[in-house]
Amino acid sequence: MSQLQPILVAGAWRQAEAVDQFTAINPRTRQPLEARFPVSGRADLLAAIAAGAAVAPELAAAAPGTIANFLEAYASLIDANRGELAALAHAETGLAVEPRLNSTELPRTIDQLRQAAQAVRDCSWTRPTIDRKLNIRSLLAPLSAPVVVFGPNNFPFAYNAVAGGDFASAIAARNPVIAKAHPSQPATSQRLAELALQALGEAGLPAATVQMLYHLPPELGLELVAHPAIGAAAFTGSRRGGLALKAAADAAGKPIYLELSSVNPVVLLAGALDERPGDLATEFAASCTLGGGQFCTNPGLVLLAPSARSKEFIAHASFRFGVSPTHVLLNEGVLEGLQASLQTLREHGATVVTGGEVVDDGFRVANTLLQVSGAQFLASPAALQTEAFGASSLVVTAESLDELLAIIATLEGNLTGSIYSHSGDGDDAAYAQVAAALRPKVGRLLNDKMPTGVAVTAAMNHGGPYPATGHPGWTAVGFPAAITRFAALQCYDNVRPQRLPAELQDANPLQIWRLVDGTWSCG
Amino acid sequence: MSQLQPILVAGAWRQAEAVDQFTAINPRTRQPLEARFPVSGRADLLAAIAAGAAVAPELAAAAPGTIANFLEAYASLIDANRGELAALAHAETGLAVEPRLNSTELPRTIDQLRQAAQAVRDCSWTRPTIDRKLNIRSLLAPLSAPVVVFGPNNFPFAYNAVAGGDFASAIAARNPVIAKAHPSQPATSQRLAELALQALGEAGLPAATVQMLYHLPPELGLELVAHPAIGAAAFTGSRRGGLALKAAADAAGKPIYLELSSVNPVVLLAGALDERPGDLATEFAASCTLGGGQFCTNPGLVLLAPSARSKEFIAHASFRFGVSPTHVLLNEGVLEGLQASLQTLREHGATVVTGGEVVDDGFRVANTLLQVSGAQFLASPAALQTEAFGASSLVVTAESLDELLAIIATLEGNLTGSIYSHSGDGDDAAYAQVAAALRPKVGRLLNDKMPTGVAVTAAMNHGGPYPATGHPGWTAVGFPAAITRFAALQCYDNVRPQRLPAELQDANPLQIWRLVDGTWSCG
Repeated sequence: MSQLQPILVAGAWRQAEAVDQFTAINPRTRQPLEARFPVSGRADLLAAIAAGAAVAPELAAAAPGTIANFLEAYASLIDANRGELAALAHAETGLAVEPRLNSTELPRTIDQLRQAAQAVRDCSWTRPTIDRKLNIRSLLAPLSAPVVVFGPNNFPFAYNAVAGGDFASAIAARNPVIAKAHPSQPATSQRLAELALQALGEAGLPAATVQMLYHLPPELGLELVAHPAIGAAAFTGSRRGGLALKAAADAAGKPIYLELSSVNPVVLLAGALDERPGDLATEFAASCTLGGGQFCTNPGLVLLAPSARSKEFIAHASFRFGVSPTHVLLNEGVLEGLQASLQTLREHGATVVTGGEVVDDGFRVANTLLQVSGAQFLASPAALQTEAFGASSLVVTAESLDELLAIIATLEGNLTGSIYSHSGDGDDAAYAQVAAALRPKVGRLLNDKMPTGVAVTAAMNHGGPYPATGHPGWTAVGFPAAITRFAALQCYDNVRPQRLPAELQDANPLQIWRLVDGTWSCG
Repeated sequence: MSQLQPILVAGAWRQAEAVDQFTAINPRTRQPLEARFPVSGRADLLAAIAAGAAVAPELAAAAPGTIANFLEAYASLIDANRGELAALAHAETGLAVEPRLNSTELPRTIDQLRQAAQAVRDCSWTRPTIDRKLNIRSLLAPLSAPVVVFGPNNFPFAYNAVAGGDFASAIAARNPVIAKAHPSQPATSQRLAELALQALGEAGLPAATVQMLYHLPPELGLELVAHPAIGAAAFTGSRRGGLALKAAADAAGKPIYLELSSVNPVVLLAGALDERPGDLATEFAASCTLGGGQFCTNPGLVLLAPSARSKEFIAHASFRFGVSPTHVLLNEGVLEGLQASLQTLREHGATVVTGGEVVDDGFRVANTLLQVSGAQFLASPAALQTEAFGASSLVVTAESLDELLAIIATLEGNLTGSIYSHSGDGDDAAYAQVAAALRPKVGRLLNDKMPTGVAVTAAMNHGGPYPATGHPGWTAVGFPAAITRFAALQCYDNVRPQRLPAELQDANPLQIWRLVDGTWSCG
């Protein structure tokens, strides 16, 4: 029997004060992997919090260049170890090494760390604002406290608690991170944390800047996000888990950033359906089945305006769903969740067009397309917005534009909303009405484009109204905005010039973009 | 007996579905004023929510210039009615007409509305961010839902629910406002709401853009901030009331911005005390007794580094407290709250240097200075940070710099923190340590300046870590930042050019500052 793997606390790998142990499961074989990992107890938690709080002031005072050096060194180490990392993640998630892990997600993760480093170097996230006449100056600054990051099951790298976007954002704001890895990916997370520790050494940052636990009993997760010494938390995962953490953090007055659930409505207007039903179906099926549909931006709800070619769209989509490979799901929990969600949808009137059945080869469900009428949807709008996490989508056929608008009015907050329209101006009148109704319900509005594929750019919003996230003003992807989640607004009033942080000094020694007396400048 | 005054709902003054009624009390005489106002029931609440939600889309689509016109028209109407407004507020709050109400607070309120209008015209709060290559664009946009604003007791104009900073911010972001006036100031709020309604007409905005209720049973306040049709809420007031609203809003996933309580620590370093104890005492006493000390930035906690002249400072401050006029307090609740807080402080070892007693002339307590040793403070740090809302402050005498730092380490989040140091470099070493400890605990750090007086400037932070407010990243004062609280981040991905909001179009037709491909420009 293998030894229990160590946790990363207070700058070193050490044995956990474990309350239990676990192994990852290979989702393709349903067999446990060899390495055994600890479920941490309260002593581990408190040790990590204490160590994180102890280094927070040093990190807050670190030079931006030092933080950027760490992020870049870490990116390069991940790049140098892509083969090994992809193999570990493949075993733990069932995601394909090529192209997904090695050629898509790892490059994205590496680029994300480098973009965060760039935002650190140019200080763009600090948003310095200066009133020279009154000598009042403000900027966004580190929280001076550890940030807790919970990793999700579906991105072993790009959202990993110890390497992904929330991690990069919290570190970029010069806060220590306490990573709570996803228990489906302990070996992947462990290897990443080893590389992070190495990069910290190369950059000369305190080793306790990055800590990692693999697993916690739920009640300790609640204690962690509410602890007085914690600065903030970030969570990507299930709505139930996220809302429990939110309640604990809220009660303690601690900021928590959540990405919870989203069905990402896609509206196909009549002109688009009339014009290109087959192309739309192909594009939709490719987006929905990509990665086994296990994306927060998966198109899970497709709203069809009335069109003579709706049936053609559905038939073609059904065909594409049927011939697309069935992906293995990330773990047994995802399999069970998908089955339960499909059951809920069926109980409320959705009929299966194709798929729906469990495939007995690892954790698999056949690619699933469901259908419901607009009237049926309006009879159970909440239940029929149940997220079916996997390669599954519900098509709703509206009888009229008014019914389509009524359906949109019932939608919860979502990360994205897409509208496909006629390539000319054939749908312009309908577009105006649909866009006005959909716009306030979604964080990102797309035209003629499926929601999967979240570009890492300053203009991205990977966020949206509750319950897609916890607050409509923040994004989890895109720098500098994502970094500002982990910052405090700090004002300096009449502070003597030599005591000001460099970002706020009159001479602008860092040559950064600042809003000075109402005008942006960087000179 | 006078008739029950009407509420402003759905664009018109109408009789409330009252569950009770009340009058304001003149705090100088303790006698009720004549006019009777309703305590609204649930029907009023639901009517206001429905009317606000109904106009929200129209308001969200309004031209920035129209919104700015309203704010400016309203500012001018307030300006034209200053005499009447000041007289109403004087009767309801006991605050002096001159200089406070007519020459300080009203001009500030008028200027604040005009600054908000300017931020609306220049669209600076929308923070447009454009990635031209990927055709991804984002901006901050209206919530498209009503914002609830709760007014506090201590600023009948500058923070009034229907005229103050939160109101101006929510309107600037093109959201309707449902104002919940402070029940101590119903006639003042009523007159303001009449002027707001007139200004809406002049600007051509929907009349239901501004609605006002005077009073609600507590449980309806909770229902209001948690209602599905509400976009967000803002509250300035007591910690207990604010935390109850926060719990309700949090559970419903609704953003709420809170300003709760703050003792605003002022640290006097040894060199400053050695150099100018009398001047410091005079400045401190003036700040603490101003407006009866009824400011959220009142210096309620003064930490003295060891100095041979500490006794001189305390004696001089005691003298100034004693000779400064005793202000009437805003209402009986403030009187009772102050007495209870002083009792708590005394029970935990604070001794009264001067004042403390109730003065039997309206709602008054003598200007109060208390004192406690550093050791005693460290024995009960939580109780000795009890906010005593009024002209009251607690002086803590530290035995050493280490003890001073230990005291700072126990401090809760505050709006402000001030450090006075030697006019030369005599305190520089101590300053570095004290500032490092105090900085993460406060929203605004001051040098050689008392915290009262919150300038309305883009660089201001009137916010701070919990429990001073609910989130360390937001400010309630200063445009454009305060406006962004009532906005949603909205991204446009691959959206056709003619469908983009003007703020995001390539040609920049509004000529606003935008971050385009990493560079700020306004051309």
